[in-house]
Formats: sequence, C-alpha cells, structure tokens
Amino acid sequence: MHSPSQPRQGHKDADKPCCSRMAKILPIIGWARTYNGATLSADLIAAVIVTIMLIPQSLAYALLAGLPAEAGLYASIAPLVVYAVFGTSRTLAVGPVAVVSLMTAASLGALDLPDTASYVAAAMLLALLSGVFLTSLSLLRLGFLANFLSHPVISGFISASGLLIATGQLRHILGVSGGGHNLPEMLGSMAAQVGAMNITTVMLGGGAIAFLFWARKWLLQLLLRLGFSKALAAALTKAGPVFAVIATTAATYALGLDKDGVKIVGNVPNLLPGFNMPSLDRELIMQLLAPAALISIIGFVETVSVAQTLAARRRQQIDPNQELLALGTANLSAAFTGGYPVTGGFARSIVNFDAGAQTPAAGLFTALGIALATVFLMPMLYFLPKATLSATIIVAVLSLVDFSVLKRTWSYSKADFAAVSTTMLVTLLVGVEQGISAGLLISLGLYLYRTSRPHIAVVGKVPGTEHYRNVKRHEVETQRELLSIRIDESLYFANARVLESEIYRLATENSETRHVILQCSAVNFIDASALESLEALDHRLKDAGIVLHLSEVKGPVMDRLEKNNFSNDLSGEIFLSHHQAICTLSLSGVA
Amino acid sequence: MHSPSQPRQGHKDADKPCCSRMAKILPIIGWARTYNGATLSADLIAAVIVTIMLIPQSLAYALLAGLPAEAGLYASIAPLVVYAVFGTSRTLAVGPVAVVSLMTAASLGALDLPDTASYVAAAMLLALLSGVFLTSLSLLRLGFLANFLSHPVISGFISASGLLIATGQLRHILGVSGGGHNLPEMLGSMAAQVGAMNITTVMLGGGAIAFLFWARKWLLQLLLRLGFSKALAAALTKAGPVFAVIATTAATYALGLDKDGVKIVGNVPNLLPGFNMPSLDRELIMQLLAPAALISIIGFVETVSVAQTLAARRRQQIDPNQELLALGTANLSAAFTGGYPVTGGFARSIVNFDAGAQTPAAGLFTALGIALATVFLMPMLYFLPKATLSATIIVAVLSLVDFSVLKRTWSYSKADFAAVSTTMLVTLLVGVEQGISAGLLISLGLYLYRTSRPHIAVVGKVPGTEHYRNVKRHEVETQRELLSIRIDESLYFANARVLESEIYRLATENSETRHVILQCSAVNFIDASALESLEALDHRLKDAGIVLHLSEVKGPVMDRLEKNNFSNDLSGEIFLSHHQAICTLSLSGVA
Repeated sequence: MHSPSQPRQGHKDADKPCCSRMAKILPIIGWARTYNGATLSADLIAAVIVTIMLIPQSLAYALLAGLPAEAGLYASIAPLVVYAVFGTSRTLAVGPVAVVSLMTAASLGALDLPDTASYVAAAMLLALLSGVFLTSLSLLRLGFLANFLSHPVISGFISASGLLIATGQLRHILGVSGGGHNLPEMLGSMAAQVGAMNITTVMLGGGAIAFLFWARKWLLQLLLRLGFSKALAAALTKAGPVFAVIATTAATYALGLDKDGVKIVGNVPNLLPGFNMPSLDRELIMQLLAPAALISIIGFVETVSVAQTLAARRRQQIDPNQELLALGTANLSAAFTGGYPVTGGFARSIVNFDAGAQTPAAGLFTALGIALATVFLMPMLYFLPKATLSATIIVAVLSLVDFSVLKRTWSYSKADFAAVSTTMLVTLLVGVEQGISAGLLISLGLYLYRTSRPHIAVVGKVPGTEHYRNVKRHEVETQRELLSIRIDESLYFANARVLESEIYRLATENSETRHVILQCSAVNFIDASALESLEALDHRLKDAGIVLHLSEVKGPVMDRLEKNNFSNDLSGEIFLSHHQAICTLSLSGVA
Repeated sequence: MHSPSQPRQGHKDADKPCCSRMAKILPIIGWARTYNGATLSADLIAAVIVTIMLIPQSLAYALLAGLPAEAGLYASIAPLVVYAVFGTSRTLAVGPVAVVSLMTAASLGALDLPDTASYVAAAMLLALLSGVFLTSLSLLRLGFLANFLSHPVISGFISASGLLIATGQLRHILGVSGGGHNLPEMLGSMAAQVGAMNITTVMLGGGAIAFLFWARKWLLQLLLRLGFSKALAAALTKAGPVFAVIATTAATYALGLDKDGVKIVGNVPNLLPGFNMPSLDRELIMQLLAPAALISIIGFVETVSVAQTLAARRRQQIDPNQELLALGTANLSAAFTGGYPVTGGFARSIVNFDAGAQTPAAGLFTALGIALATVFLMPMLYFLPKATLSATIIVAVLSLVDFSVLKRTWSYSKADFAAVSTTMLVTLLVGVEQGISAGLLISLGLYLYRTSRPHIAVVGKVPGTEHYRNVKRHEVETQRELLSIRIDESLYFANARVLESEIYRLATENSETRHVILQCSAVNFIDASALESLEALDHRLKDAGIVLHLSEVKGPVMDRLEKNNFSNDLSGEIFLSHHQAICTLSLSGVA
C-alpha cells in the first residue's frame, strides 16, 4: 500500500504546468480549461456506472455506521462536488467507506446517545471535527504525520476491520438483533440469539451472498461466453449488487416477505439534504475529538494511497497536502448536509478509473446521479431487505481481508510483525480505535527501543582497500594499539549512556589499546545528552591512558561540535576519513 | 549529571570480584566480609555527621510533602537499612528528598483527601506503588527506560522544581497560609494574604535564611581563620541548619514566640514506627499509578546519577539494575513503616562521602542515629519554628536551580532547548507531573520528527582517496551518468515515503543519469515499510531507464535483505564499498 509523501513536494501535472497559486489551491481551474466533448462523454459514462454501484453501497455503509439509510446518500452528494473542486486526483471517488463507517459506529456507539436524531447530529459533528482536523493539517503542512502509521500497521488494521465488519453484518443475515464493537461481543450477542433466527431472512441473505460471490468469480466469463462485449461484460459484473438489490426487493414485494419477519429498508425520505448546522455541544466535542483524529488519519492514508496508485497508472501525480485540504473540505460539506465522515474509497475509485473517467467532473456527474436517485429511486426501494445490503457489505469487505502481511513481516522483521499482529489482535478483540492506537504506539515504541540499544562493531581494514568493516563478518586487518569502533546509530539521550559504558568496556578490555577511533559514518546527529556522554567518555579514557579520536564525522554534526568547541577539548583528533586516521596514528609511532 | 547505564552491564567491584550470584543480589555479602575496625570508625564518624544533618532535613521535607513531621523521620530509618543490604553504591544516602517530596505533595494534593490520617495512608500507598514499580523494572531488566529522559530535560525539571519548592516555602517564612501546585497559584495565594503576614515569623525565618546563606558562603573561611582544623571547620559549616534549629527553637521557647503567632512543629510522637500495612483501596491505587511511576523514574534517575558521580570519584562502579532493586525495596520498607517515597539524595550523599564513609554500614548507623533522635530528641524540638525548616529547604533547593542549561542547549541544539524550556515552563506554570511528562513527550516527539525528515547528500570522491563526501561541502569528483546519494538515516516507516520521492526527484532531475547508487553507510536498519518503498523506487526508476544500486550495506541489514530475495529483485547490484561501485560502473562502459 502506498501513502502520503512529504507535503513540500510540489503539485506537478503531467498534462500542463499549473503555475498560478490559484490553480494550485483550486485544481479544477487546471482541468476545466481543456474540458471538451470527448472528456465529457467519458466522464458521463463513468458517472453512470459509479452511480449505479454507489446507491446500494451508500445505503449499506450508512446502516453499518448505525445511521438511517439516507445519511449514506447525503454523504455521497456534497462531498463529491467539493472534492471535484479541490482534489488533485483525476479519478478518486470519495464518499462513505466501510472502515470509516465502522469507526463511526464504534465512536458514536460508545456515547450512549438517547435517540436517532442525536445520533445523526453526532455523526455530523464527527464529520465537522474531522473536516476541521484535516483542513488544519493541510494549512499547517502537517500531512507528514500520517507517515507515522507504518504500512504493515495500516494493512493489518484494514484486514482486521474487514473481518470485524463482516462478522457484525452476519446478524442481519441471520435476522437477529445484537451488536458489539469487537469479535467476542459480536459473536457472544449473536450466539445468545441464534434461536431467534429468521429462516426467510437467512435464505434471502444467504442467497444474496452466494450470488455475489458467484458473480464476482464467474459472471464475467459467462457473459463473455454469451457474446457480450468485454466492456459491457465488465460493467455488468461490477453491477452484481444491483441485480441482487432488484431481485430481492422484487421477491420481498411480491411474496410479502416483510410480513415473515424480513427487515426492510422502508421509508427513506426522497428529499435532497438541506443545509444543517451540526450541534456544537462542548462535551460532545471533547468526547469526539480523539475519534475524529483517528478517523481523519485513517481516511487520509486510505485516500492518498488510492489516489497515488491510480495516478501512477496514468503517470499523473497527486499533491498529498492538497488532498488533505480536499478531503477536509469534503468532510466539512458532509457535516453541513446531513452526512457523516467520508474518504476516498478504493473499490469505487477503481470502478471510476476502469470506466474511463478522465477528470473530477465524473465526480460531479456522480453526485448529480445520486441526487436524482435520492429523489426518484428511493420510493422503489421501500421493500429492499436489509439482509441484501449486509450481503453486499460482507462480500465487499472480505476482499480487504489479507493475512499475508503476517507471514511477510514474520520472515522479514519481528518488530514489524509485533506491530501488525498487535494491531490486528487489539482491533478484533477490543475495538477499532484501540487497535489503530496500539499499532501506532507499538511501532513507535519498538523503533525507539531499537535506536536506544544500537549495534556497534569493532572494524578493521579490508585488505587492499581503504574500506573498514566489522571484524566479526569480514577478513580484515587490525592493529593492537588502535581500536576502531563503528557506531551504527545517531547519538541521542536514549542511547548516550549505553554507548558510553559499552565503548569504555571495549576500550579497556585489552590493556594494549592506546587509541580509540570512533567511526561516525552512521552518526547523523549528536544531541546535548550525547555530547555530555562523549565528553565524559573522553575524560574516563584519558584517565585510563587512552586517547579518543573521531573519524568521518558528517558535515552537519561537525558544524555543531565546532560551535561547542568540542574539537579543542577532545584529547584526540577528528579525521575526515577513517583510513586517514589509521594512517596518521600508525605513522605517529604508537604502533 | 550522570545517569542510568544499560542494565546488562555487570556489577564490577574495584576492590574484589563478586562472582557468586548471591553476592550480586546482596552486595552486603561482598563488603561485610572485609569489614574491620578502620572502616567501622570511618563509617561511624560519617554516620554521626549525616544524622545531625538529616534530622532537620527529614522534618522539613515531610512538611514540604504535606505530611506530619514524623513521616520524614520514619522515611529515614527502614529505607536506609534496606539500602545498606541491597545497594551497590558505597556512599549513597537514601531518604526523603526535596523534588520527590514536592511530587508527593502534588500527587496527593490533587486527591482531595478528607483528613491527615488518610493523607498519611495515601503517602504510604504511594511509596508501596513506587516500590513495586521499581522492583518490577529491576526484575524485568527495564531500567533502560529511564534513559528516555534526556539530560537537559532532567536538569531543567530539577531547576524548575527547586524554584517551585522555594516559592512554596515562602509562605511559611511570611507566616501565612496558602498553597498551590504551580507558580501562579502559589504567588496568587500568597499575594491574597500578604496583609495577614506575621512580623515575628518573618524576622525569625528571614534571619534563618540570611544566616544559612552567610554560613554557606563565609563560615568555612571564618572557622579556618579562627584556627579550627579543616575537617572540623567543614563539618561545622555543613551543620549550619543545626545551629539555626537550635538558635530559633531556643529563642521561641525563651521569648514565647509561639504566642505571637509563630507556628511551631509541636508534639511529634517520640515512638519508633511500627509495621503498618498501607490501605489497598482500588480507586486510590488507580489514581496513584501514574504519579508513582513518575516519582519512581525521577527518583531512580537521581539515585543512579548521584551514585555514579560518587563511585567514579573513588574508581568504584555501581550496577544500575541492582540500584533499581535497592531503591524499590527501600520504598517498600518506607511503605510499611509509615514513611513516603524515598530516593538517593544528592546533598546528604556528598556529606556522607566527604565525611569519609567507606561502606553502606554508615547508612545502618545513620538509621540508628535517626531512630535514637526520634525517641530522645523530638520532645526537645517542640518549639522548633516551621519557618526555620522552610528556611533550610529554601537555601538547600536554591542550590539546585541552574538556568545555564538553557543557554548551553540554545547554542548547541534547538531541539534540546525546546525540550528543556518546555519542561521548565510547564513545571513552573502547570505543575511537576505535567512538566516532566511534557519534557519526555516533546524530546521523543522531536527525535521522531528529526528522523522522519532525514538529511540526504549527493556525494563525490575526495580526490586521491577512496572516500566520498557531500558535493556541497567538499571539492569532490563526480561523473555525469552516476549519481551517488548518501542517506543519513535508517529507513523506517516514518521516512520511507519521503525518501522514496526525494531520491526519485534527484535521480530524474538530470536526464543524463543512468545509475543511482545509494550509499548505505548510515542506514542501520530497513523496516518492512521502507523495503516496500525501496522496491517501489526501483520499479519507478527502471521505468525511467535508471538502474538502482546500493553500496556499503551493513551486515545485519544485508542479512535481512537477502532473506527477502531483495538483492535478486533489485535492478542493479549491491556493492561492498562505494568506491568499488563507482569503479565497477565506470568500467562497465556507461561513462
């Protein structure tokens, strides 16, 4: 998975240079200038396909988030328009997505809200906070903070979330009530109610799942064999969930299955969203701050990751910092139009890309399509069973679940394995917010631990070269009076004292040692604590009759040491290269 | 200031090798074997001097902690005995100290406890938790965690705490009530009551402060001029607080100053501490966990710092991990004998050292001295004014205040300056716990920030050598088709994407570039995220017609890359030395 690059990287457009500051902040100015009939028809076709796919998905994710179905539709209108204005990706499709919907459910579910109205208001507030957070990160150019989530942690989190979502949706397939924010809670509440299972719902939902899996695997081949064109066959395959929606809605209506206990979507208001101010309750804001930050970071990482993958395929570029702004404003628009937190979705963006979308105008047309569907289509979906929506979610999220990252990291790096397995376990067993937080903390903690116990190596000369390597790994030449030690880490407070005592031990191990030369090629900085330790080491070695030298000190490090007069106070010298140090000290007659 | 080294460093004794595992856990076995008359008399003399010094100090620090005076005496009996058994320092004196007393007051003051009895019980519980925490760190060999507090942060914290303590004690000198846990609160509550100032108390306390400052600065010279021996003059100078105690107690008794509003110590029970179980209230334990951890870490850092400084002067060594155990058990003993958290004190250890203490037996005798004083001396201190105790605290802690660290770090490293100034400001303006936490977090945060935005340099050959340095700093030779880039940081999740895009930018900047060689001499590890980025970079460069090579990959890093078949997948080669890479690629005819 790919993800945010540094914010200072400028916005580069493969088609034409956008030099003006205005076009940088409003990328729409860039692509709108060259908009023509060909791009229009390409964008329109893509928009129709994405709209058809988004209708059941928006309803489904709203239910996953614990919201009324229309919140999903509303979150797929205004945010798409705003992203088309501010986004740098040509093909990214924003809106409600699975993982963020789950996180929304987890953070709002923890609040114990009295009724649906206050739940909807809290979801809008969550989108507002998320929008403010992302926009602030963009203005402060702090997008690099997202880099502190490592690839394995993100991929472990997405997989575990997918599993959690699929498990949570199972109850709609079984037709039982229940809840829970982690695997034990979900399984427990389902197990307790397995007796109340509704057979009609199970057959309907199970049938939908079976059909969707079958369609995903075999429909394309079947359609091709039936003589459909490749493009049409692919589009129809992607529309699998739409067929499931039509078939189960028709069956429920015709057979009156809702009277057999099949839960249906029912009345969804066929109104466009109005402008609503989210309630600004101070206590609620405090409770939602941390969840909003987590949702924002996860949403941003997912957005940039998808946008970068797609941009690379067409040799375009995206600007991560501008994406922060676009996603932030998209969330703000969701907050004021009855939506909930949105982000760039992987599946819908791929569909948009594959359907041939050329510019963000496809997103504008999609928003229009969803708006039309909200007004004209919703009454026809009165009998849509909730089990069908759950079936589409289950099939969609199970494609996110990929445990291979566990195997890969186990064989490559135990620290990465620890981070990803902790993320997955905590997400599954405790909850999503705790899972991603644990992953972040453990990966940072292990990094700090590693740098606090650095590797150091006694080095010797590779014969016939001026190159020095570890005596334990290579056949090298050494001299008895000269001890060369390479320090494999920057010197800072967490490792300063460890290194001080370890180097002192190595230096005094052999009574013949007269000079110790620290090869600093891997020392990228020396902080104030480490400087004190170096001075203390120099004094201790001097007392033991040993002179301390440094070699290969890098420019920026040397600048600092000189400012502090360290080079004058040091008992030995500072050499440009380690080879030069060895030659000088050998010649000086100590050897 | 010196501090904890890594725990794996073994216990070394300059006098004789302690080989048995038993003697490692019970250092007393080591020194007790060679105990003789000479060491006995040296230890006895030191113990008498330290006891005299400790009596007013123990009373004063107990009051600073908000506890009854006897808690200070109790904290100076059992812990000294326990430390003598488990400690590795020959001269460290443990007991109540200023900074930890302040932290105790801050953490207990936040609890809103109903009466003195429950305050005393909570202090014992705090010592218990601190003891359990330290002992666990020792058993799990986690003492290295203390290294994450940088030298500047510790020294800033100690200075700010000293200032805070001195300010807080001023109200006893003024004879007004009041409180507060930070500078604005303390000054505010004093300002509000300045009208209620008690003139007699001000004269008594002000006189004591003036005398103590004078004694510290001039008494030694005066006594030497009067013909006293150097040792006796030094001892008498150190006993300045004792003179102040005697003089002001006598004056208060004789002139009946307590009737003029001078607050006196009053009745201190002349009983030895019994064995008391601290109350194990679950809610209280949860509230005290974090403060106990902070107190333990600060106490441990101070202890090891003092112990190492003194051990170095006599060429002895201490074992930081064993010190954790000794300090942990000392705190446990304080918890069960009516005390409160203890640690190794700087001033008293210096006095013990200067007075000629040879073994921890001096601590045993000091404990005996304090026990005798508790029983026989306390009734005589009924009229001791609290203002005198505050005067001794003020004079003692002001010697801890040293703002030079601000100037030093400002000129050497802005990151260290930011950490130390934040620590000081938050400690003074908010409180001690917040101050040390802020210092810890900001120094870790700045370290992570620094490593997430690494320095990279285009390098060239220093003429006539095989050494490569930054083209911007040195006169070096380069070739147009070969781009040599040195990465000055380990590659990990936080910098992987930044480096990927930065190297790609440098590589594609010049259309003549055919080979990019990454000099990895400063790359100490490559985690799974960075490996993905390297692979992605290789693919992107290959698309641009550029071959990626690595050079000077360290042994441990190479082992991993090979396990993952990276060297086979890489478009270019991995060279042992950068010089070899340049020679090979030049010869291959690309140049």
